[in-house]
Amino acid sequence: MYVTHLECPKCELTYESEQPIQLCTCGAPLLVGYDLDRVRDSLSKEVLASRKPTLWRYRELLPIRKDENILSLGESMTPVLPLGRLGPEVGMPHLWMKDEGLLPTGTFKARGAAVGVSRARELGIKVLAMPTNGNAGAAWAAYCAAAGIRAVIVMPADSPAINRKECIIAGASLYLVNGRISDAGKIIREAVDRFGWYDASTLKEPYRIEGKKTMGLELLEQFNWQAPDVIVYPTGGGVGIIGIYKALKELRTMGWIGEKLPRLVAVQSTGCAPIVKAWQENRKESQFWENAHTIAFGLTVPHALGDFLVLEAVRETNGCAVAVADEDILKAQQMLAQKEGTFVCPEGAATLSAAMKLAKEGWITPQEQIVLLNTGTGLKYAETVHSDPPLLQPGDRL
Amino acid sequence: MYVTHLECPKCELTYESEQPIQLCTCGAPLLVGYDLDRVRDSLSKEVLASRKPTLWRYRELLPIRKDENILSLGESMTPVLPLGRLGPEVGMPHLWMKDEGLLPTGTFKARGAAVGVSRARELGIKVLAMPTNGNAGAAWAAYCAAAGIRAVIVMPADSPAINRKECIIAGASLYLVNGRISDAGKIIREAVDRFGWYDASTLKEPYRIEGKKTMGLELLEQFNWQAPDVIVYPTGGGVGIIGIYKALKELRTMGWIGEKLPRLVAVQSTGCAPIVKAWQENRKESQFWENAHTIAFGLTVPHALGDFLVLEAVRETNGCAVAVADEDILKAQQMLAQKEGTFVCPEGAATLSAAMKLAKEGWITPQEQIVLLNTGTGLKYAETVHSDPPLLQPGDRL
Repeated sequence: MYVTHLECPKCELTYESEQPIQLCTCGAPLLVGYDLDRVRDSLSKEVLASRKPTLWRYRELLPIRKDENILSLGESMTPVLPLGRLGPEVGMPHLWMKDEGLLPTGTFKARGAAVGVSRARELGIKVLAMPTNGNAGAAWAAYCAAAGIRAVIVMPADSPAINRKECIIAGASLYLVNGRISDAGKIIREAVDRFGWYDASTLKEPYRIEGKKTMGLELLEQFNWQAPDVIVYPTGGGVGIIGIYKALKELRTMGWIGEKLPRLVAVQSTGCAPIVKAWQENRKESQFWENAHTIAFGLTVPHALGDFLVLEAVRETNGCAVAVADEDILKAQQMLAQKEGTFVCPEGAATLSAAMKLAKEGWITPQEQIVLLNTGTGLKYAETVHSDPPLLQPGDRL
Repeated sequence: MYVTHLECPKCELTYESEQPIQLCTCGAPLLVGYDLDRVRDSLSKEVLASRKPTLWRYRELLPIRKDENILSLGESMTPVLPLGRLGPEVGMPHLWMKDEGLLPTGTFKARGAAVGVSRARELGIKVLAMPTNGNAGAAWAAYCAAAGIRAVIVMPADSPAINRKECIIAGASLYLVNGRISDAGKIIREAVDRFGWYDASTLKEPYRIEGKKTMGLELLEQFNWQAPDVIVYPTGGGVGIIGIYKALKELRTMGWIGEKLPRLVAVQSTGCAPIVKAWQENRKESQFWENAHTIAFGLTVPHALGDFLVLEAVRETNGCAVAVADEDILKAQQMLAQKEGTFVCPEGAATLSAAMKLAKEGWITPQEQIVLLNTGTGLKYAETVHSDPPLLQPGDRL
């Protein structure tokens, strides 16, 4: 393993990594540090190219000590699809979509869970607890089942019904709360303190982000280590974009990519846009968003623990933060399905909507390489599609 | 392209392959023939190993003439998961599951659609029509959207709601019928005759099976060209098992695998088991199954056009056909989720149930390598899971 330590990005305190640990004493999330010189010396792009097409190919940049602790439900490299029919129509001839809907449990959350639960198992965890908007809980419940770890999950009562069922069938201890993910978080915090469970809330353990990081590693490898110009990412808790940014910085330190990083765009819904508001007001942290509501349920995070890291990623890459309306999200979802055949989640569709807005404003130019991140399959969001097809009787004619 | 001709497996008539064609004049489905000597001379296992991990790596054994006609939504090689926790408990220490739920549209139907629609586009098709139990229609609608082909689809009114929505969002012309897939088939047949559309019903065009064939090619490559002992496959229309059998025979002819093929097991539900009945009665064809009903909706095929090919595949490989009850299917689905973290469709769960039955009877022995085929994700079958978690108020304690 090439992990050297854990580090607080806020107060710069460091910790050793062989004990279960949650936040820094200052309250900020901890990040995993690697000996990147040693990684560079032991791994070449050629060796990497010959490995199996799963996220575990980035073994040297992942925090698992022993292979036997690796849990896998088949986290294949997700495709980067050229949007050849849609792109030119919306002023972006070089438009791509990385489709995370093809991961186990149907969302990018599988990356964080695969690495997070593998590491939890390695650290001897028996029970872990977390609040969730749905998809993260479903992914962690699945990997916990495979690991034999008990998962205790609290999710908002109005989160998608499918997520509930995924937790239940995997044997998790599931509770609903008549409120938002922030309310679920408070209940988990109290229980964790009382029972001594491992807190797997977003960024409260350092390893989920390492799984998400592989989105960035994979994307860059798929682009032959030539960074695209812009990466557009839907931002709820923000771990995805933080992870991609961390991947980019590690690859740059290793000399595997050039100095110039892709501009990172954080996309939120106008119904819950704390990061966008902070960005517009040039703040380093966000404020709690009251009465959050959007059809892109994964974006309903009124206050993200990692907000300052998201804002740093956007700022340091000359990116930006954009909010889009639910009705535009649904239109974008339909455009992707009808032109490209992909049924994406509303969070993913939001990235198309945001990119179109940026292209219209000239922030994105036609010669640029743009990558949208679709974070999950539309199959988990059946309620976003209305269908009322004609009903025939046997023997009828079309 | 290495395709030489199309051939009827019943009357042995041959056809050339560059025109759109449906069934043989005798009414049987047509199969695609290849110049396997030439394939063997042009392709090595080493070259294959270096290709991208999608079904298109088997290019020489697929019926597409020009690369530009290939449609892709990211058909990655699907994982073969070792069932290391569950297998030993059910008397099969060497139990594997190939998980087709990670394909675009969430089922193995994407393989048939990727190849079938690519070929339809190559042949200049503008409109295609098909009856479906749901998942095939969803997959063909998606690939048709990507191809700019109009899809006309008729499905039973009680097929899963999600399939309806997948067709609608992809822009297909969708109709429901108050009956079974056989009723939908009659409506399509009449419309195809009247409007001159391309009939993409199961086995009524020769190319879907070529896509399904890649399941077998991939599985054998993943097993390092050492055939496992048994492959257990859920059988509705039967194209999957026919495709796997065709793959095995082609690989054997090429000398890439040995003479002995895996025993193929066709699994049906006791609520619709025409193939199993024919197998038990030692017939070469099946009879229409009255009042078909099972929770594994994809298996609700009262009479499959390719029944004689399924029965041949089972017979020639010393396999067998097994029917399992819906309640055992649901139990198996839960076992897979709780022990291995995979949420499979009921059709896929049926294979575990069947394998357990065969292991109990001694037909499967503990030292054998057994592969279950999970044909789709459980995310499309939310109704198979009951959930009623406790509801908390903000501020409550666990």
